This record gives sequence, C-alpha cells and structure tokens, in this order.
Amino acid sequence: MLEDYKKIVEKELNLFFNDKLAKAELIDPASKEMIELLKEYTLRGGKRLRAALVYHSYRCFSKKNLKEIIKASMAMELLQSYLLIHDDIMDNDDLRRNGPTLHISYKGIAEKDFKKTDSKHFGISMAILAGDICCSFANEIIAELDIKERYKTAALKALNHTTHKVIYGQALDLLSELRKVDEKDIEKIHKLKTATYTIEAPLHIGALLAGAKEKHLQTLSSYAIPLGKAFQIQDDILGMFGNEEKLGKPIASDLKEGKKTLLILKAIDNADAVQKIAIINALGSKRLTDLQIKKIRKIIKDTGSLDFSKNLAKKLIQKSKQAVQNSNFKKPGKNFLLDIANYLENREY
Amino acid sequence: MLEDYKKIVEKELNLFFNDKLAKAELIDPASKEMIELLKEYTLRGGKRLRAALVYHSYRCFSKKNLKEIIKASMAMELLQSYLLIHDDIMDNDDLRRNGPTLHISYKGIAEKDFKKTDSKHFGISMAILAGDICCSFANEIIAELDIKERYKTAALKALNHTTHKVIYGQALDLLSELRKVDEKDIEKIHKLKTATYTIEAPLHIGALLAGAKEKHLQTLSSYAIPLGKAFQIQDDILGMFGNEEKLGKPIASDLKEGKKTLLILKAIDNADAVQKIAIINALGSKRLTDLQIKKIRKIIKDTGSLDFSKNLAKKLIQKSKQAVQNSNFKKPGKNFLLDIANYLENREY
Repeated sequence: MLEDYKKIVEKELNLFFNDKLAKAELIDPASKEMIELLKEYTLRGGKRLRAALVYHSYRCFSKKNLKEIIKASMAMELLQSYLLIHDDIMDNDDLRRNGPTLHISYKGIAEKDFKKTDSKHFGISMAILAGDICCSFANEIIAELDIKERYKTAALKALNHTTHKVIYGQALDLLSELRKVDEKDIEKIHKLKTATYTIEAPLHIGALLAGAKEKHLQTLSSYAIPLGKAFQIQDDILGMFGNEEKLGKPIASDLKEGKKTLLILKAIDNADAVQKIAIINALGSKRLTDLQIKKIRKIIKDTGSLDFSKNLAKKLIQKSKQAVQNSNFKKPGKNFLLDIANYLENREY
Repeated sequence: MLEDYKKIVEKELNLFFNDKLAKAELIDPASKEMIELLKEYTLRGGKRLRAALVYHSYRCFSKKNLKEIIKASMAMELLQSYLLIHDDIMDNDDLRRNGPTLHISYKGIAEKDFKKTDSKHFGISMAILAGDICCSFANEIIAELDIKERYKTAALKALNHTTHKVIYGQALDLLSELRKVDEKDIEKIHKLKTATYTIEAPLHIGALLAGAKEKHLQTLSSYAIPLGKAFQIQDDILGMFGNEEKLGKPIASDLKEGKKTLLILKAIDNADAVQKIAIINALGSKRLTDLQIKKIRKIIKDTGSLDFSKNLAKKLIQKSKQAVQNSNFKKPGKNFLLDIANYLENREY
C-alpha cells in the first residue's frame, strides 16, 4: 500500500538531490559531498509514511495539481532527515536504516582526511549542519510550489508549528532518560513526537494545500491522534520484540538508552520484586546480553504489559477509523486512510 | 543609528518570547525552561543589524504596514540565534555576548540536576534542539505576517535560500581550519557567511515583503555584497586588535581556532622566515599568551597586512555606496543604507 507511493516520492527526491548536487558543486567540493551524504542517507530507506499521508490527505479534497503535491510530500521526508540526523547525534547512534548515521560518516571522513582533529567533534559539527540544510530545503520546497499562495503559507505555518512541537517532544524524550516519568509523561512525548508530527501534521499539510476548511482539519486530527499513539506503541513493541535486520537499528535500544516506554512502565507496575530488579538493572545498561534481553521480554509478557500495549493500540486504531468513516472525504484519499488504519490494526509483531 | 531600532525590535522579541513562554508552560516545565534560556540568549546583546536592514530596506519601497515589518525583522534575529547556538557548539565556545553559550548553560543544568549523565553531551543535545526551535520560529513568524500572501512566500524562499547558503559557508569555515585554503576560499566563506546572509538576505527579505521588483533586488545586492565583505574584514580586524570586553568573546579566537582570515593569509604571504614560523606556531594553538598575541599583531602590521585589509574594506564600502546613491529608493530607507555604509567607512579599530 505504501510501496507504490514510496517509488513515486523517491523518484522525486532523487531529482531534487541531483539538482542540489549540481548547485553545490558550483560552491565547493565539500558542499557537494554534504549533499551526496544527505542524498544517500535520505534515500537509503524509510517507509515514506509521512509523504504518503500528505499526498492522500490532499486527495481527500482535490484531484488537481497532483505533481505539486508530490513535491510537497517530499518536503516531509527532508524534514524527517533533518530531525533524524540531529536525533542520531543526541542518541549517540551509529546506525540508521542499516547504514552509518551522518555524524559517523563525517567522523570517518575526518579520520581519513584530517588526522590531527577531534574526529568525533568534527562528525557531530558537520552532521548538525547537514541536518540544518535539510530543514531549509523542506521550507523552501513548500514556498516554491505552484499552488495558491495562501494555501502555501497555511501549510508552512503548520509545518513549522509541528516542527517546534516535535522538538519539544524530543527534548522531553531526552529528559525522560534522566528524570522520573510516569504514564502521562510518556503519553505527552508520544503525542508530540508521533501523533502530532508523524500523522497529524502530514495530513494537515496535505489538506491545507488543497484549501481544506477548519472542520476538515479537525476530522483529520480525530483520525490522526489516536492512530499516532497506536503507531508509537507498536513501534515500542517492535523495538523490543522485532529483529535487528528489519528494524535497521539495534534491538532493545530504548531499554539500553534508559527510555521508559509504556511497555516498560506497565511491566514495572505489575512486576514482583525480583522482576522489578531485573528491569531496573537492564534500564540504561549499554551492554545488555541477549540473555538479559530475553529475560526482560519474558517479564514484559508475564506481567501482562505486552497484552496491555497491544490492546490499547487496537482500541486507539478503532477510534481513529470511526473519525474518517463518517466523513464526506473524497474516495481515493479516504480509502487510503482507512487502509492504513486497517494495516496497523492487523500488523504482525 | 542602530540603537533606536534595536529598542524597537527587542521590545517585539520580548513580547514574542513571553507568548511562547506561556504556551511552553502548558506543555512541560522543561519546554518553558528552554524558551527562558532562548529568550535570555537572544536578548542578551547584539547590534540587531539584520533586523534593522529588513526594516529599512522595506522602507526603501513602502510606508505601509510597518508594524508587520517589525515582526518580520524579528525573524532574522531568531534565525541568527539558531545559527549562533549551533556555531557555538561547533566552535566549542563557552562564551557568547558576555554570557554562557547555550550548550554550556545546559551542561550546567545537567551537572546540577542529573549527576549520572554525560553533561557535555547533554548540553550539546539540548542546544541543538534549542537552536532548531528558533529556526521554526523564524519561518513561522514570516508565514503568519498580515501581508500579501505572495510577498510572504517570496520572503520565505529568500529566507531559506540564504539559510542553506550560510550553512554551506559554516561547513567550509570549519574545514578551513583543517585543510589548506587560499585567499579565494576565504572570500567564498565571507561571501556565504557574511555578505549574503548578514547584509543581502535581510535587504532582500525587507524588499520582497514590500513587493519590490527584481531590478531593485539587484541594486540591493550591488550594495550588499561589497559591504558584507568589508564588514567581515573589519570583524576580523576587531577580533585580532579589539578588546575582549567590547567583543564579548576572547581576543584572537580566530587565530586560536586556526582560522586563516585574510589578515593572517596576507601576513603569511609577506612574512620573512622568522615571522612565518611565529604565525604558523600561533595558528591553532589553544593556549596563546598575551605576549604571543602582541607579537602576531606586530607582524600583521609590519607585513602591511593590516593596511591591506583596511584599504580593501574602504574600497568595498565606496563601491556599495555608489550602488544606492544612484537608485530611486525612498528617502528614509535610502538614507539609512548610506548611513550604515558611512558608519562602517569611518569605524574606529
């Protein structure tokens, strides 16, 4: 379902980066190198869910000008690269989508070319800049669309509004590793990082570019927020129970980073003394053994935490489907939104 | 000349941050803390040259709606905070405008509140996010102005276009400490970081918000590019010969970071063997003594490098004045542009 649109938007991203490469080459070989790294990083993987949501949300309201909307949807993927590149630095991650993170690529370049310098710091510095560039690209693309001016400014307001919210969310996420958090705090972070940013914002941006009315945006929110929460819960489950190859990042990385997901919090709530100690020892421990991970998985199951998360996700998805079912959205867009919800409802863990 | 406008835009920035503070408080105390830090960082100093240029460039073409242009000019100062906060991380600077840089403020918070964590990394992470938020704010402000929609999208194109260019410039600047650079490379960096971003972009944004035509933008560029180059050259001189209190940052920091400014490059070109060794030893040395700095200053003077830079700056300023003198720009704006050039022409080192 996402595969078709993934091809379309990746073709567009490819064209976009080739144009930027040609321009960067005129500036400096180092500028070209930065765009090459960004192109590879952005195109190396990803489901392109956000891009597809922009496109199909637009199709809930309009059939015209689809070529411009493909470009707009690409902006969401560049925004995503921006945020991921910066997140990778904060999380000290070496891998993203089965390849090196950008600060690691640049660290390697420093080790090869500039032996005297602090290669780690150089890697971080260049990756901050590479991320920043992607943010400008995303805004620029929307501003340059061949679409009614007031639709574009409305979309740009939404884009930057959601960006600053997801940044608040990321800051709270970092802090959640350091301070005491409860279920409400976790929900807040999910809402800012996933529900608002991953689902609601692309839908709003697509709709605004079609000139949709406020009441339509509200319907989209009633679909987006519960779906986004469900999506995050499922992601946490996959992060704990999925396999490394499919995830494109190490298993149980949330656990290793000390992130208290709902899965972990509920397990702690229902754990006996021995189980509780096992979880607390594992939380934030950088060198977890496979055996330890297995043990924590078992505790998450035995305490009922896994079932709790799965059931909650199911309920949320049903709520989000209802919001769209009763709407008068145009067929192609509406069907896509329901398909996505159905897909998540029946997702295999 | 800049003082009057500084007061106006800082009053507006104050209102802006207070509004964001109220909203951030509803999210989380940590979000509020981030805005508090950004408010203090942004308002702690700065000449507000970019903001003044937006405002007065607008006044070259229009008298209406000045209230909205004050807001637009504020966006340039938020963009500046974004870039400075990230630059501070890359340059490992502890001080900015006589106060702690943002990653240092956050490092302090970690040391106080989260004893177990890597406080340096935490500081960098939170400062990346705080910078990112300012970027969203800048774009959001322009998108929300009460001004013709197509003027806003034109200004947003210019804003993001200049942002990605200044980022290329910053990347080249970092690399200039590590690889061999010549006069042309230095000029390229100045153009991207100062001429384009500090002078040309604010002027274009102000003009575009007034609906100015392409030929007017070209005139503004003919004023901006030489003036920007002159400004950068003067900044390099002040960085080497000014005093720490006035600069708000350590003296000779370019030298310590190994940055090859035009001042240094010309001195090397004309130096004898002994002088050359002294410069090369000083370049990139973190612990320069006052005596060493004095010695390098003397070499820069004795080799004629200081005079070369001063004369070049003078010539560039004259060129930029000519561009505006012959224009049909409206008086209040035009006079300000000439005043700025005259001020720089007669600046005391």
